[in-house]
Amino acid sequence: MSVLKGMRVVEGSAFVAVPLAGMTLAQMGAEVIRFDRIGGGLDAGRWPLAPTKQSLFWAGMNKGKKSIAVDMKSDEGRELISEIITARGDDAGLFLTNLRVRGWMDYETLSKRREDLIMVTLMGDRHGRPQVDYTVNPALGIPHITGPEGSEDPVANALPAWDLVAGHMCVSALLAAERHRLRGGGGQEVELALKDVAAATLGHLGMIGDATLNGGDRGKAGNALYGAYGQDFVCADGRRVMVIGLTDRQWRGLVKATGTGDAMAALERSLGADLSDEGQRWQHRDLITGVLKPWFAARKVSDFAAMFNDRGLTWSEFRTVREAMAQDPDLSTDNPMFSKVMSPGVGSYLTPAHPALFSASGRLPAVPAPVLGANTEEILSDVVGLTDAQIGGLLDRRVVDVPDGWGSVAA
Amino acid sequence: MSVLKGMRVVEGSAFVAVPLAGMTLAQMGAEVIRFDRIGGGLDAGRWPLAPTKQSLFWAGMNKGKKSIAVDMKSDEGRELISEIITARGDDAGLFLTNLRVRGWMDYETLSKRREDLIMVTLMGDRHGRPQVDYTVNPALGIPHITGPEGSEDPVANALPAWDLVAGHMCVSALLAAERHRLRGGGGQEVELALKDVAAATLGHLGMIGDATLNGGDRGKAGNALYGAYGQDFVCADGRRVMVIGLTDRQWRGLVKATGTGDAMAALERSLGADLSDEGQRWQHRDLITGVLKPWFAARKVSDFAAMFNDRGLTWSEFRTVREAMAQDPDLSTDNPMFSKVMSPGVGSYLTPAHPALFSASGRLPAVPAPVLGANTEEILSDVVGLTDAQIGGLLDRRVVDVPDGWGSVAA
Repeated sequence: MSVLKGMRVVEGSAFVAVPLAGMTLAQMGAEVIRFDRIGGGLDAGRWPLAPTKQSLFWAGMNKGKKSIAVDMKSDEGRELISEIITARGDDAGLFLTNLRVRGWMDYETLSKRREDLIMVTLMGDRHGRPQVDYTVNPALGIPHITGPEGSEDPVANALPAWDLVAGHMCVSALLAAERHRLRGGGGQEVELALKDVAAATLGHLGMIGDATLNGGDRGKAGNALYGAYGQDFVCADGRRVMVIGLTDRQWRGLVKATGTGDAMAALERSLGADLSDEGQRWQHRDLITGVLKPWFAARKVSDFAAMFNDRGLTWSEFRTVREAMAQDPDLSTDNPMFSKVMSPGVGSYLTPAHPALFSASGRLPAVPAPVLGANTEEILSDVVGLTDAQIGGLLDRRVVDVPDGWGSVAA
Repeated sequence: MSVLKGMRVVEGSAFVAVPLAGMTLAQMGAEVIRFDRIGGGLDAGRWPLAPTKQSLFWAGMNKGKKSIAVDMKSDEGRELISEIITARGDDAGLFLTNLRVRGWMDYETLSKRREDLIMVTLMGDRHGRPQVDYTVNPALGIPHITGPEGSEDPVANALPAWDLVAGHMCVSALLAAERHRLRGGGGQEVELALKDVAAATLGHLGMIGDATLNGGDRGKAGNALYGAYGQDFVCADGRRVMVIGLTDRQWRGLVKATGTGDAMAALERSLGADLSDEGQRWQHRDLITGVLKPWFAARKVSDFAAMFNDRGLTWSEFRTVREAMAQDPDLSTDNPMFSKVMSPGVGSYLTPAHPALFSASGRLPAVPAPVLGANTEEILSDVVGLTDAQIGGLLDRRVVDVPDGWGSVAA
């Protein structure tokens, strides 16, 4: 029995955060119904695309969900969606969205149909204005601390980090609210904003306190680990590695493995510094790097990789995604999190399940995303309780849709 | 009543992910007890530091928790921690950790004391080897897609994005497992690895499918939004803005606001392209940017900011953290998520509560982090059930500690 078995969540979403939230719940065993307009919502064709021109992004973000395609401009379609969101069941009445449709799809209206509804809404900012990862990040200062030391040019994240964080916060907010309901607390509306998620995180990391109490802005530090020691080095074979001396144990291990103990001791004496203090390692990182650089420049990665591993150093090579897939067993079916999955219309490739292994329930294997509308008939029958004739009528009137080649429209 | 009121979680942690997980639960109302060794664990002095030399990182990551300091090398200390982790209570028996101590603190041993224990363990990689955000990120290819187009140099994230994601996944994994227990499923061990969290996320975003099916590695694209249109521009006042044309509506709004409709139409004709297709905007982004660049270069931000807002464009300025704090009301006490909090030994500054607003319970205000060991006596009394005399004995034998100037050791 998977950990969230029995829970039903309805998702009305686009882009990264909320689709990721629904998918994460599905990968823990919840039944997740994603509704979209006929032809697909704003992210139906998002890059990257497969050679078939189908969206790899859709395939990645909707694994294990059920999909229903509905004409949301029609009253009948809106009624169906409202019915699906508020359908009965103790483990249902859970709605995740970032669509922010006023009127028929807001909490006030929907909670009249089901009083104990839990609705989690992700907004752009707290005012309800649209914001995306690419605007929140520069607005709050991250690009100014990213990239080479001395450069003035801000560098944006290639990874939509705030979307990822916000999506996972939607998951935990929904689970927390459902726990509260289960204990008799009733339903509720939960609202959070992408920009607030980012702003709060800066606070958690100490960056707001730093800017307030220390004055000045934290500068760029290239690829150095902030606050202790960690640095990238180019080796004799042209490959690049990252080595970490964050904890005392890691630092001592690095110094010993590279045989730089005497040089570091000399450095400490000349600076009057104590490099066993992580903050002093950070302050003197350029000099430390100067000591270590010739060691790495004189060696190929293969000269020291096994020795570093044997000594338990914390380090890694820099790799592209393709290199990682070719070289790293963690990015292969050796890793039980991954399996090769055929995604309809897209292709077959390495696909992740949920990263957590739950000992009581095991890991649900990765399953593909549905084609848009693939579960339209099943949902109308099982959740809304319509007859085949009623479903046929909805399909004929194009209130709902199924994939080409399926169901009565295409028949 | 806060949303997680009544839940008790014990945390044995260091660094970003697991402390963030415990803090997120505390900010939703759970009682979170963090234990550390006397004098503090690996992150007690983590940068950034306040002018007092106390850690702003500790203050940020431990808000609202209770702290107990214990000599974990002594049998008595280990017994106390085991007792705290497995103490009775339907809403207790929840343990979050990344310390990975074998023997007395592993699931097998602890679950003998409390059969329905839920223990969530974050590892570095799935083999149990140490990994940090700074090694996982380069190992999986993100620095190779970050930074200026054409550059060969990998650029690391300044933001510990994988730690943040993994921390929030620890929260949802714990809540999911507790839900399962509440429904009679019993306790369990939940294990996940930082590297797996990152590898799975690459899969969710479509990057593994892209590398597999399309061949080639995705290149760097500077500050451009991947897959559609979004770009940074330097304005006449030297300030930099990010503008987004991800959705059709955003794209049309941007073209209209900048009066570049004719130029874009001419571009479409000469290319035989359809810029209403987001993927074609991505493919032709350099030419689009060429059209828009003079418009921004000729204007100060103040010339168009109000107009952009009135039109509902999705855009932002690039700011440092200090600039954002000076200019953006979302990073001030105007935002109900923030309040000015005095953190003992650190200072007073803007401090975030949980980003989500739960309508049934309201938002718990931000509260400071405890000084290390501040709740030692309270926890020994309330959770372990010791008498004052027993606690005094433990303090005298230095099995536990309280902050300087507190309790019987300092007396």
